[in-house]
Amino acid sequence: MQPIRMGMIGGGEGAFIGAVHRHAAGLDGHYQLVCGAFSRDEQNNARTGKTLNVEPSRCYADWQSMLQEEAQRPLEERMQVVVIVTPNHLHVPISQAAIKAGFHVFCEKPAGVNFAEVKALQDTIHASGVLYGLAHTYLGYPMVWQARHMVTTGMLGTIRKVFVEYPQGWLSGEEESHNKQAQWRTDPAISGATGAMGDIGTHAFGLVEFVLDDAVTALSGELYTHVEGRRLDDDGAALIKTRNGATGVLVASQVCAGEENALKIRVYGDKGGLEWRQMEPNSVVYRPVNAPSQVYRAGQGQAGLCEQASSRCRTPSGHPEGYLEAMANLYRDFANAIRANQKGKAQGVPGINAGLRGMVFIDAMLASSGSDTKWESVSAEGTQ
Amino acid sequence: MQPIRMGMIGGGEGAFIGAVHRHAAGLDGHYQLVCGAFSRDEQNNARTGKTLNVEPSRCYADWQSMLQEEAQRPLEERMQVVVIVTPNHLHVPISQAAIKAGFHVFCEKPAGVNFAEVKALQDTIHASGVLYGLAHTYLGYPMVWQARHMVTTGMLGTIRKVFVEYPQGWLSGEEESHNKQAQWRTDPAISGATGAMGDIGTHAFGLVEFVLDDAVTALSGELYTHVEGRRLDDDGAALIKTRNGATGVLVASQVCAGEENALKIRVYGDKGGLEWRQMEPNSVVYRPVNAPSQVYRAGQGQAGLCEQASSRCRTPSGHPEGYLEAMANLYRDFANAIRANQKGKAQGVPGINAGLRGMVFIDAMLASSGSDTKWESVSAEGTQ
Amino acid sequence: MQPIRMGMIGGGEGAFIGAVHRHAAGLDGHYQLVCGAFSRDEQNNARTGKTLNVEPSRCYADWQSMLQEEAQRPLEERMQVVVIVTPNHLHVPISQAAIKAGFHVFCEKPAGVNFAEVKALQDTIHASGVLYGLAHTYLGYPMVWQARHMVTTGMLGTIRKVFVEYPQGWLSGEEESHNKQAQWRTDPAISGATGAMGDIGTHAFGLVEFVLDDAVTALSGELYTHVEGRRLDDDGAALIKTRNGATGVLVASQVCAGEENALKIRVYGDKGGLEWRQMEPNSVVYRPVNAPSQVYRAGQGQAGLCEQASSRCRTPSGHPEGYLEAMANLYRDFANAIRANQKGKAQGVPGINAGLRGMVFIDAMLASSGSDTKWESVSAEGTQ
Amino acid sequence: MQPIRMGMIGGGEGAFIGAVHRHAAGLDGHYQLVCGAFSRDEQNNARTGKTLNVEPSRCYADWQSMLQEEAQRPLEERMQVVVIVTPNHLHVPISQAAIKAGFHVFCEKPAGVNFAEVKALQDTIHASGVLYGLAHTYLGYPMVWQARHMVTTGMLGTIRKVFVEYPQGWLSGEEESHNKQAQWRTDPAISGATGAMGDIGTHAFGLVEFVLDDAVTALSGELYTHVEGRRLDDDGAALIKTRNGATGVLVASQVCAGEENALKIRVYGDKGGLEWRQMEPNSVVYRPVNAPSQVYRAGQGQAGLCEQASSRCRTPSGHPEGYLEAMANLYRDFANAIRANQKGKAQGVPGINAGLRGMVFIDAMLASSGSDTKWESVSAEGTQ
Repeated sequence: MQPIRMGMIGGGEGAFIGAVHRHAAGLDGHYQLVCGAFSRDEQNNARTGKTLNVEPSRCYADWQSMLQEEAQRPLEERMQVVVIVTPNHLHVPISQAAIKAGFHVFCEKPAGVNFAEVKALQDTIHASGVLYGLAHTYLGYPMVWQARHMVTTGMLGTIRKVFVEYPQGWLSGEEESHNKQAQWRTDPAISGATGAMGDIGTHAFGLVEFVLDDAVTALSGELYTHVEGRRLDDDGAALIKTRNGATGVLVASQVCAGEENALKIRVYGDKGGLEWRQMEPNSVVYRPVNAPSQVYRAGQGQAGLCEQASSRCRTPSGHPEGYLEAMANLYRDFANAIRANQKGKAQGVPGINAGLRGMVFIDAMLASSGSDTKWESVSAEGTQ
Repeated sequence: MQPIRMGMIGGGEGAFIGAVHRHAAGLDGHYQLVCGAFSRDEQNNARTGKTLNVEPSRCYADWQSMLQEEAQRPLEERMQVVVIVTPNHLHVPISQAAIKAGFHVFCEKPAGVNFAEVKALQDTIHASGVLYGLAHTYLGYPMVWQARHMVTTGMLGTIRKVFVEYPQGWLSGEEESHNKQAQWRTDPAISGATGAMGDIGTHAFGLVEFVLDDAVTALSGELYTHVEGRRLDDDGAALIKTRNGATGVLVASQVCAGEENALKIRVYGDKGGLEWRQMEPNSVVYRPVNAPSQVYRAGQGQAGLCEQASSRCRTPSGHPEGYLEAMANLYRDFANAIRANQKGKAQGVPGINAGLRGMVFIDAMLASSGSDTKWESVSAEGTQ
Repeated sequence: MQPIRMGMIGGGEGAFIGAVHRHAAGLDGHYQLVCGAFSRDEQNNARTGKTLNVEPSRCYADWQSMLQEEAQRPLEERMQVVVIVTPNHLHVPISQAAIKAGFHVFCEKPAGVNFAEVKALQDTIHASGVLYGLAHTYLGYPMVWQARHMVTTGMLGTIRKVFVEYPQGWLSGEEESHNKQAQWRTDPAISGATGAMGDIGTHAFGLVEFVLDDAVTALSGELYTHVEGRRLDDDGAALIKTRNGATGVLVASQVCAGEENALKIRVYGDKGGLEWRQMEPNSVVYRPVNAPSQVYRAGQGQAGLCEQASSRCRTPSGHPEGYLEAMANLYRDFANAIRANQKGKAQGVPGINAGLRGMVFIDAMLASSGSDTKWESVSAEGTQ
Repeated sequence: MQPIRMGMIGGGEGAFIGAVHRHAAGLDGHYQLVCGAFSRDEQNNARTGKTLNVEPSRCYADWQSMLQEEAQRPLEERMQVVVIVTPNHLHVPISQAAIKAGFHVFCEKPAGVNFAEVKALQDTIHASGVLYGLAHTYLGYPMVWQARHMVTTGMLGTIRKVFVEYPQGWLSGEEESHNKQAQWRTDPAISGATGAMGDIGTHAFGLVEFVLDDAVTALSGELYTHVEGRRLDDDGAALIKTRNGATGVLVASQVCAGEENALKIRVYGDKGGLEWRQMEPNSVVYRPVNAPSQVYRAGQGQAGLCEQASSRCRTPSGHPEGYLEAMANLYRDFANAIRANQKGKAQGVPGINAGLRGMVFIDAMLASSGSDTKWESVSAEGTQ
């Protein structure tokens, strides 16, 4: 099979997430990077292109010229998919332009910075013939699929409770001038109207809806800003309710000093519970009522794994796979979808609906925080 | 030293918590059980007394006669402390009578079934010359003291966040007729106005206030009842705020299928975080900002332990001590307090204030649950 | 029931293991300490007796007079069982004298300091009408019984491999003059011919034979002494073979810097494996072939537990029990055996055979260490 | 930078390790697969080439023709490095031919099937101008480098003990006809003279020498075969001694039912100990004497990490990296070495010496197993 021709916007030297996308795209050999607009800084852009073996003529000064010029190349050599790894405020403008130019889009999350622009993007996607994928990386983990399988096949019975938490500690201190990440992620003009809740709370929210195959319908939450001078929330929590009747708690914080990236979900039904942790992603603990708990483990062909989980493993059990492999699973499914001429949403890859869900979650959190009213409803936009 | 003469009300055959108290009192040899009113069932009462080597003449038919008759015995042989391990609704009536008769009281939690009666009991205690201890067992764990030490000596900096959770699974199913525990714990006439929140939520609440040396001032919570026909809550959660400015989440549930007794607290300040779990109580994980996390371990004379923690260990590190030892620590401190002629509250042992805090917490939870208003304030009653 | 009248030899102020025995005996209320010869130091002896509420007239200056005088007391008040917690070299002399005087003996391990004296003690016990118990504390853990149950009922299939290890770190440094424990444990005149291997290697060895219900028949090992000036081994390891055809490895060391008391056993058969760790003693991990691993948990009435394990728990699951409870299980079984008029060996409590097995193990290790010949056979003495 | 042109011998459909190498080579984008002799089966070979986007003209029928024809291609398009992922007995013949033809070699371990052929290969490499890399994948883990750093910079003091173990369970049962892996790995004609010990024992051995920066000089071991009809060992253990005076134990087994791939190393010196586990490879536990243990964590720029570890991480801490990333680290270092015109051994990548060490280890194990003599010396061949 010929690799799929990929272009990248953002991801110049010093950018964390661009490199992650390239690793993930490279892991299975389905993609070839053929062009990029890696940085507004001309030198950075050129150096990045050179390092990545992109022809100088296809290292574009800005994303506009990249989309325009690539669209004019012969079909057999032009970029097929554009990967967007810019700061958040550019996600929608670039996605819109790319889709209109006929390119598939694989976008770092969030889909955009507000509901309106993401809703409009949804319309564009629906009207187009291209694929749109959103890098909700954690939904690429095999054992997240296993957890969803356990819930949806009734191993837990009727779901009563869900607890999801995403504590990080890296924003515990004052923003340091040299931490580029910290700077833009706490700048409302770039990140959107929330900080931690938009950045990682949306992952927690998406994980709940995916694992439960359910929709959050209401929440009661608060956002907090702990570090002096910071302009966006760095911490928050909410009580939540779902359409199917589960209740629970969602926590997302970037001031949990000493925590790394401790996303965790626990689900309890009347027949059993389960637990998955991102920091040791290759296990799901299953706790049936009145029997010893069981540890389901990732691995090709591993006993007890559903097909959806097993097929997302590249090695037999005991060979840990991690974050890059999770994202690579999204890239692999996206490549398969392109080759299969799927439209709109790639099977196995979060799409624009996931992006819309993130927006309605953020809006509900912003509405709830500081309000005297306890419960805020969460729009059904984006649910199936 | 002569052992302290102890009487017990409740704790007949088949009662879980009575045996726990006897084990805990026996561990260090400070007590001798001299009398009891173990059960309203005459045969059970007699058999229990015989098993425990209590003279038949001091196995009383009811607690009233026990208090009355013991009070008339010569000082050198009469009961000194009465241990109350009855269902909740009798805690205050017996405590009141015992204190008025001049006995020290060591009472299983909760202190009572509503604020008013516990407040009245507080007055009685303050007016008396006796000691009142409340079995908030988890506050007897050495590493809970270590956690408090870490917070109060500034190892975590300014406290921002606290997460406490107490998931159990044993009430996931329909009440079974043979489970005596499950029956009375979900009967409002016996347990008081809450179920899970009163039974174990109060432990979580007390742990927060103890470890933080702070007071919860407001909460926003919900109580739920998941099992059909159950008359009290079996699950709930709340957002919380403290006097010193921390915020957080409290969860208590008895329908987390497959969970045993997974009380856990995490605290985060601007300099570091900590975590303690009841299920592996001999460790506190300390997570300083920008340095490897550290595992502090229980054990006599163990490196890094504060005196309060070290003195609560009976063995060198690596010899696990558990729940019975935690309660035994309360009994040991209570014995020391009796011998030292302390009054009102025994050093190291939760007293009536802890009981009162539990009542204000329950009242706030009941007020908040189902209310449209987001935040409910928590009375300062019982705080220092 | 009347408590059993217990005397103690050794265990004065500053002695670790004496206090452990008293805690363990006290936990269930089956014993009353009525006499002692706690220390050769007169003042220490008196102070200890006073603290423990032993009548001054029954605080004896030495063990000889204690045995002699107690034997002359009226039957209804005289000591019934003597607990021996002296340094090792006195275990047999005191046991011999006590048995001949008609007292039951509960002895801290090891049974003695060489094979000959323990063999002779076995003869004495067999000829007597009393009970002899040996404090192989780890064999009192419920989940050790569960592990044995899993092996003997075939859950693992035919046993192939066993790995047992007991790393400690407390003798990593030079003996410090103030550490009384470290001093006598490394003095051949008091401890016997081995250090670490006798002290803790015997625990590891006994655990293998108990869990496998099998006998070690050969070993190939080495003993090492790492700290300059130390007179006994502080570390060693051996390959082992059992009667039933399993092979494995045994490690015992007191110079594994940073380790606490990390006794662990793993067993593998053709159908599955298991693992138990003393540092978290309330779990056994069971790993069936081709199925998720399972975590069996301690706790009264817990799903999947055998009767032998369940009956050794005092609380429902989730209330950690530990080292003191393990020893208390031996004391409880010993009390039951006294009351049931058992003879020689108390059901559930390691007896003189366990002591003899320790001796043959030490002898084989000493013979193997430094030898050019690979395999040393282990005598069958003490096996069933 | 232009990618390095890579060819692959072996790795057709159904081969586990070939895909692993391709994932690892793809992760960082340093390689382009330009040719292959993937399978002796013509159809498999063609299909594999097509899937991997290799030109049909460069899908060779056998490795001989591949080496020959590639050597005749123009320098700017010919293969630069050949990856060997065939069964073991072909490793040396192919390596020899490839080196003589001027290609760099990256070979799956073991280097060969006996000492003589690997020694001869060493001579060839030394006489050549090319690079030879050996896929001791576990030496690519960042935290293995961290462990070595801790040892070599004295954080543990003088090293006394090392325990390494590598239990797997996948060969617990009869060989199943459909498991190709199991078949050839237990066939002496293909695998060499040992089974488990050659397959995974060499990993354990290499890990010891790497982390300790020391050489094993003697061992006393046994090999076992547990499954009827199996022709090679499936299990074994050895006591070991090192040049610098450490002693320890090495275990490798493929019949530890229920174990996945549980490679683990623990090292103890007079100042502290450390532990690393392949199943959770992103942590090293450091246990200083007389202080709380510390958990060092992988992650770019993570506190406390040495440069060697930190530079081998692609993401900040909390984003688990695993087995594929470990091998990718070897590939990245190998690419850097090619570009830097290094000769013989690529910095950071195990070379022919590591291969030779594996052979002397296997020879010593074979000599020791079944021998009556206790200690067998391990040749110094391959040590620095």
